[in-house]
Amino acid sequence: MTSLKDHSVLQNGAGSDRIVISVDAMGGDRGPAAVVAGIAQSAQKNPTLDFILHGPEQELQKLVKKKRDLDGRCVIRDAEGVVKMTDKPSQVMRNGKGTSMWSALEAVKQKEATVAVSCGNTGALMALSMIRLRKLPGINRPAIAILWPSRNPSGFNVMLDVGADIRADAQDLLQYALMGTSYARNGLDLERPRVGLLNVGTEENKGFPELKEAFDLIAANADRAQFEFVGYVEGGDIPGDRCDVIVTDGFTGNIALKTGEGTAKLIGDNLKNSFSLSPLSRLAGLIALPALKRFQKKIDPRRVNGGVFLGLNGTVVKSHGSADATGISAAVKLAFELAQAGFGDRLAARVASAAELAQNDAAADDRDAEDKSKT
Amino acid sequence: MTSLKDHSVLQNGAGSDRIVISVDAMGGDRGPAAVVAGIAQSAQKNPTLDFILHGPEQELQKLVKKKRDLDGRCVIRDAEGVVKMTDKPSQVMRNGKGTSMWSALEAVKQKEATVAVSCGNTGALMALSMIRLRKLPGINRPAIAILWPSRNPSGFNVMLDVGADIRADAQDLLQYALMGTSYARNGLDLERPRVGLLNVGTEENKGFPELKEAFDLIAANADRAQFEFVGYVEGGDIPGDRCDVIVTDGFTGNIALKTGEGTAKLIGDNLKNSFSLSPLSRLAGLIALPALKRFQKKIDPRRVNGGVFLGLNGTVVKSHGSADATGISAAVKLAFELAQAGFGDRLAARVASAAELAQNDAAADDRDAEDKSKT
Repeated sequence: MTSLKDHSVLQNGAGSDRIVISVDAMGGDRGPAAVVAGIAQSAQKNPTLDFILHGPEQELQKLVKKKRDLDGRCVIRDAEGVVKMTDKPSQVMRNGKGTSMWSALEAVKQKEATVAVSCGNTGALMALSMIRLRKLPGINRPAIAILWPSRNPSGFNVMLDVGADIRADAQDLLQYALMGTSYARNGLDLERPRVGLLNVGTEENKGFPELKEAFDLIAANADRAQFEFVGYVEGGDIPGDRCDVIVTDGFTGNIALKTGEGTAKLIGDNLKNSFSLSPLSRLAGLIALPALKRFQKKIDPRRVNGGVFLGLNGTVVKSHGSADATGISAAVKLAFELAQAGFGDRLAARVASAAELAQNDAAADDRDAEDKSKT
Repeated sequence: MTSLKDHSVLQNGAGSDRIVISVDAMGGDRGPAAVVAGIAQSAQKNPTLDFILHGPEQELQKLVKKKRDLDGRCVIRDAEGVVKMTDKPSQVMRNGKGTSMWSALEAVKQKEATVAVSCGNTGALMALSMIRLRKLPGINRPAIAILWPSRNPSGFNVMLDVGADIRADAQDLLQYALMGTSYARNGLDLERPRVGLLNVGTEENKGFPELKEAFDLIAANADRAQFEFVGYVEGGDIPGDRCDVIVTDGFTGNIALKTGEGTAKLIGDNLKNSFSLSPLSRLAGLIALPALKRFQKKIDPRRVNGGVFLGLNGTVVKSHGSADATGISAAVKLAFELAQAGFGDRLAARVASAAELAQNDAAADDRDAEDKSKT
């Protein structure tokens, strides 16, 4: 029944410029009500959006019915299983079929939706994405990219990997540079993004030998891949304006991300406290409210909510586990923008052409070597 | 002449509870004037402090003469050479003699001063500290520890290593745990500090195999070294309240530190902008000023300025290169507190007893093995 109903709804939008987002309703800390509230917010703001929502049908039906903005624009796919935050990725890979997460990815695999959004368990989502969507040819390790508030005119930088894999060799870091460039070009509208490689200093002799190898590899590919390589950057450049794309392994990136988020949250809470210490400071806070709100909006992590999985046959947006309706809506907005820009296809084309060029180079090197051996 | 004068001044304080800090006047971004202004601030606030100041005598004499608070409390050691921010540590190790940095460390080595303070080149300062002060017996890699604003009652956490060495094996991380515990006990006044090992998740199966090895080693030593091991912590726990000491390698720690600092600075600047957009918001800012100042004081990195080099025969405080007078004064305050607590000797005793216990364990293991081979 569900699937029949699906088609009748989705075909309403077929042929038009409507964009379908596949949303995992389960697995977030705040439950499906927050997810449904979030997509309803998005639906209201953006009339070209449709949704396929995955989870226990009866529960979701009740929630969706209450939202008039979702009327006729949200199809429910019944999936009883839920991936929990504590589930191990390896378990989910074996037993994940029938979960809402699996179902959400399946809709992208079957090309019913352009992008999948989930606020569930990151490790499990990456593991399922790898087996359902598969890696792009030429990609060894997919990465999670995020937008980070920065001093750049766009207000953001792209950082990757923030936790898909704890390891990355020089080849992986080059692929991150290529994928990050694609993301910055589509997400931040930059023609020739500046790429930086994260290290503990900007001098060429700093850091591990593996980093120097990545440095040389990225530098050698900058021109043909149309990005500018600014060399090593430091932690302070992540929120800075020296580059647009910060490339690092998932261990370092994840710790930097969480340190930055935690610091921002601590500062925000301290600021709130400063304005509640005395009646006078509460009054001051009240008067300063518009300025404070402007400030909070600028640094609110919910408004830049969403890590994007790059390097797969299909785009997946990972929303924060603790995301509320505003956070979910931000993740859906990001998914919409990527879908609209045809990001998935462009990224695939870019990675494919880089792989081809590298192969041609290798072939040319072989020919050179042959020529030399002949002489 | 200088040394004669030195003694006549310093002997005034001998036998009393006066504390002498050795200060490198050169190498900071703001030059010796900021350093002299900083130590003058400290001298004014704290009447038990004396200084040995290292740098070009004539230049320093002029600056010191202008500060009445330093009258009779600051000896100048002539040193014409200056270690520049761009100098490589290896060069400085070979040719560093005669620099103000070398001279500042020498005063600690000769026990004329208890702690050395410098805002010069970190790599060079660590390299010179290693060759002049030498590593404590039982320490393989010294570490740089910092205090990080946190949600704990003390307002701070200790994190190490933030950049002495990019590598750390399991033994090193255990030593960081021991040294960090000592620092937290003295610097944050905690009897039984909680130690966390930085990772990308809190589950035991997360991260690199080397981290798991460190996890087991630290856990095994918690009781005898009188700290509580909370296990793995994440980037968000650095400004949090799950632990008091965060242990990590210098690569990860340095990037986390700089990401946190950069994020805090970006937020502070954004806040300032929010209050200057319109005449009304400027007025609001004016009324909110006391609350904003309270907030800024709480997060001002200048007020927690100073990384401490741990694991050497003598204590060295590294102040920010860009430190102004307030920053220098904060670093001197930290140096004073460490000197007063007899921190250097306590740390040495702790590390020595840990090394001894480990040796006893090894000997016991050998005996066990022998006993077994006999049966």
